[in-house]
Amino acid sequence: MSRGRPYVRPLDLKRGCVDLSHGAGGRAMQQLIDELFVPAFAGGTAVARGDDGAVLPELAYGERAVIATDSHVVSPLFFPGGDIGSLSVHGTVNDLAMMGARPLYLSAGFVLEEGFGLGELARIVASMGRAARAAGVQIVTGDTKVVEQGKGDGVFITTTGFGALPAGRALSGAHARPGDRILLSGSIGDHGMAIMSLRESLAFETEIVSDSAALHDLVAALLAAVPSSSELADPARGLRLLRDPTRGGLASTLNEIALQSGVGIELDETAIPVRPQVAAACEFLGLDPLYVANEGKLVAVCAAADTDRALAALRAHPLGADAAIIGEITDDPQHFVQMRTGFGGRRNVDWLSGEQLPRIC
Amino acid sequence: MSRGRPYVRPLDLKRGCVDLSHGAGGRAMQQLIDELFVPAFAGGTAVARGDDGAVLPELAYGERAVIATDSHVVSPLFFPGGDIGSLSVHGTVNDLAMMGARPLYLSAGFVLEEGFGLGELARIVASMGRAARAAGVQIVTGDTKVVEQGKGDGVFITTTGFGALPAGRALSGAHARPGDRILLSGSIGDHGMAIMSLRESLAFETEIVSDSAALHDLVAALLAAVPSSSELADPARGLRLLRDPTRGGLASTLNEIALQSGVGIELDETAIPVRPQVAAACEFLGLDPLYVANEGKLVAVCAAADTDRALAALRAHPLGADAAIIGEITDDPQHFVQMRTGFGGRRNVDWLSGEQLPRIC
Repeated sequence: MSRGRPYVRPLDLKRGCVDLSHGAGGRAMQQLIDELFVPAFAGGTAVARGDDGAVLPELAYGERAVIATDSHVVSPLFFPGGDIGSLSVHGTVNDLAMMGARPLYLSAGFVLEEGFGLGELARIVASMGRAARAAGVQIVTGDTKVVEQGKGDGVFITTTGFGALPAGRALSGAHARPGDRILLSGSIGDHGMAIMSLRESLAFETEIVSDSAALHDLVAALLAAVPSSSELADPARGLRLLRDPTRGGLASTLNEIALQSGVGIELDETAIPVRPQVAAACEFLGLDPLYVANEGKLVAVCAAADTDRALAALRAHPLGADAAIIGEITDDPQHFVQMRTGFGGRRNVDWLSGEQLPRIC
Repeated sequence: MSRGRPYVRPLDLKRGCVDLSHGAGGRAMQQLIDELFVPAFAGGTAVARGDDGAVLPELAYGERAVIATDSHVVSPLFFPGGDIGSLSVHGTVNDLAMMGARPLYLSAGFVLEEGFGLGELARIVASMGRAARAAGVQIVTGDTKVVEQGKGDGVFITTTGFGALPAGRALSGAHARPGDRILLSGSIGDHGMAIMSLRESLAFETEIVSDSAALHDLVAALLAAVPSSSELADPARGLRLLRDPTRGGLASTLNEIALQSGVGIELDETAIPVRPQVAAACEFLGLDPLYVANEGKLVAVCAAADTDRALAALRAHPLGADAAIIGEITDDPQHFVQMRTGFGGRRNVDWLSGEQLPRIC
């Protein structure tokens, strides 16, 4: 792994800190890569080769490449259910999965703050490596920069994912049609409220745990049961689109879909799962769970005829056990998202207009 | 472009600032994307579609995908010869070019600091767009996050490049062999000293201008004259590797090559071009130009028999007009980089061991 470099002493993971030399392109940076990144990302052979980039194996015939990118600035860096390392893998793996692509490779760009503990960095990088192996993706290339103390905040991680889209498959936020049904794979608000509870030092009987998870396997199960409409002869069948309701929450994701597809959306409030402790934390902080970020949930829109099949496929997977049908696509030239409330009324679910929860991912 | 969103008023590029809502996933973020990013990156159709990632067109038969990533934290953000926007395109385009790949697509992840001027951001993004169009690459997907004032430094940009490697072509830092010649495409130290002169408010008769440039076209010209050794029947012919000597400068790049290939390197100091004002600035600041970053230069290692052909190809291109043969690969089990000095002596050119120039790219 060390490629034969004669470092005088190994990195001090107990008391050592990131300094500017770790981003300067010289011996210290090579040591950081050799001793900290390469072992954690073991399996990504291109990283170990030391070239400027990675040459990827060819895709199968007819497959198309998909790329997606996410910058991660979550604060705090460690939270119940994950950390910035695992989150930076899940976030980008999920973006690929929502396009219907099989996630294959990741690149990672780190912006480190001078003075950040090498031990904490090692924990984060190890967590990234574990999350990547669990998701079956290789971290194949990367970059590290260091900024002066007070010009960053510990660590920011930008991951770019590269996946393979099978021939014929097409999912897009523009594919929803009036009459389609909207499914949600589980409860909302868990990630955002795990972070907020930590920031606000809220204590509940049950700790709120982030739902941060890689969804590609759940997506594969769903697509095995209900292929995308583009793969089927009958336009009244199939899966139209997938989206993960991250920043801005379910409300923002549904508004995006309504706008992209040029449709309206009608939701059933009572059908949307919210864990009791998440609901309690939201009420305490004056937040609406519809706008709170999720990192392990998906929204699926499918043709009405395939609703039951899609729901069964989601529920049969551990990450979709609480899946529910939460509404349908309507014909609405104003592209409104409306909700039938638990009291029998109706209200408009608008875009998130303020910041709500900064640095949630 | 605006996809029909009814923003109450357009972004105020004169007095407006980035605030936390621009990274929150709601209406403000969409407005930033619609009014600032999409027009600047025009041509990258996937950006305008609003999905989680971009589906790329298929590569030609036998071509392989190459990915490379670079985080950019240069300070100051604007400098003679470029800015963080153009640099973030050139840096990643060049990483792809050094692998022998034709650059095709870029993703861009932005970490913005609250309070950063929207006008400055617009300038940077416009510069990125121009640099991408000039290099023939499309910016196809991206992400924007915002951190609180004092937790970032204006803007950090991570770009990931996606390119196509023609069948049979292989360049790697591990391919140098004793007897090979080392070529450099032009003068060293220009980028680093442009930044340092600005930081230290040095004034010279002639302003030092960064050499920041996209090198893929120069590489194409070189490879047309001298194909990679892997494409030739005779192992004593062809181009072995390309590297751009960025952070850590020429010295660090050559040490990396020596180590990766398990060889030694002998340089001729008098053959290495350094502009007079760069030499003067280095002397003033006590810096060695061998360790100063370049952003528009390449090191090429080729079989001795192809040296003249390679040199002629470089010199025939505007970006390689000052190209020179600077040394050769030797058989040295210690993998030292040694230099014959102008005075007839010899010295060891070691790895950069301190930080030298932080935040140079």
